[in-house]
Amino acid sequence: MKVHVPLDGIVSAVALLGGTGKLGRGLALRWAPKERVIIGSRFRGKAEDAAAEVRQTLGGASAGNVRGMLNREAIEEADLVVFCIKLEPALRLAKRRRKSLMGKLILSPVVAMRRKGNLRVPKLKPSTSAALRLANVLGQRSRVVAGLHTIPAAMLYSKDPLGDYSVVVYGEQPAKGVVMQLVREIEGLHPLDGGPLEMSFLSEYTTALLLNLGILNQRRGYSVKYY
Amino acid sequence: MKVHVPLDGIVSAVALLGGTGKLGRGLALRWAPKERVIIGSRFRGKAEDAAAEVRQTLGGASAGNVRGMLNREAIEEADLVVFCIKLEPALRLAKRRRKSLMGKLILSPVVAMRRKGNLRVPKLKPSTSAALRLANVLGQRSRVVAGLHTIPAAMLYSKDPLGDYSVVVYGEQPAKGVVMQLVREIEGLHPLDGGPLEMSFLSEYTTALLLNLGILNQRRGYSVKYY
Repeated sequence: MKVHVPLDGIVSAVALLGGTGKLGRGLALRWAPKERVIIGSRFRGKAEDAAAEVRQTLGGASAGNVRGMLNREAIEEADLVVFCIKLEPALRLAKRRRKSLMGKLILSPVVAMRRKGNLRVPKLKPSTSAALRLANVLGQRSRVVAGLHTIPAAMLYSKDPLGDYSVVVYGEQPAKGVVMQLVREIEGLHPLDGGPLEMSFLSEYTTALLLNLGILNQRRGYSVKYY
Repeated sequence: MKVHVPLDGIVSAVALLGGTGKLGRGLALRWAPKERVIIGSRFRGKAEDAAAEVRQTLGGASAGNVRGMLNREAIEEADLVVFCIKLEPALRLAKRRRKSLMGKLILSPVVAMRRKGNLRVPKLKPSTSAALRLANVLGQRSRVVAGLHTIPAAMLYSKDPLGDYSVVVYGEQPAKGVVMQLVREIEGLHPLDGGPLEMSFLSEYTTALLLNLGILNQRRGYSVKYY
């Protein structure tokens, strides 16, 4: 099935795998004005409900850019695939859909954390990262880019304009450039080049820090701006 | 020797150990309007020259708040001691001056990094940090606080007003609260509680990220704001 390409869209469609949560719905809401977005789920009904909710929140013409379907179908229709789930299910899904993910551009905002008292610490060593683990599962020819770790999901899934935040993007060109351009399409977000995927642990670690700042400083939803 | 305590100063004096570089001179410049600051060095002449330079840059009444002397003497006169040198010399100095550092409030902005290609990566594992290593050398009863990792020295040592930046501070109360208050004395800097010293690797890691952003994004001197 050929999808409608919006005039100013950069990709044919963005698939938000496991995108029924706040991160997925938030990205759908923010990208729909410029891109076709597909909320994916293991359950068709959940995907369709989430898409309907986003369409209602959006209103206007761009609501037509949001659809819900099975993860498997979402992958087929998109050329950018975003994993909106936790690391372990993301790795399982990547293994199962390895063939259909081949040749797609993959974006990983995944962060693996564990609790330490009331705070959070990164689960993975600096020698790896969620994005690298995904790339390992998908194989050498995969094009995995890491980014969007540090924008709180609740901030994305809101009708309020986003503040002025940085999004550090890791990976190889030209895939990284495409993602940086897609980040620029979301008002308020400013992409920065963070280097190769091997460096993506730095933004995964930052996410633990942001959560701790929220816990320790009587305010939720910290994000970050580098300047 | 009794030092003059400025009316609105929080500590009797701040010692900037190895403070003849940009970090030390920068902190002297920024704290002198409110605090007595002492630039320390292994060489009396170097310390005095650096202090003279800062006094000249400052001008006005607060210039009188800046002196230069040997590290050993600086420790004696201050109740807050900042290590403005790299990790290995900092650990050697801490070992040598362990006794006189006892009971002092210690601030570590130290970050250990190594090169990886043209980029930087943290040298220490997340299970430790420069500040924790310092605390280990100084013993259980030491009061080590970590902070000021992410403000570029060249930004501090400038007559330009500082931008609006965050300073995450790690350690135990009440020591951490004193340092947070001292950070607030520098216009533009906003302290945030980062939790215990065990979490200070997070801001040491952030410093590597900031340097990489400078290398990769055609701009020097990135700092960070969390909000």
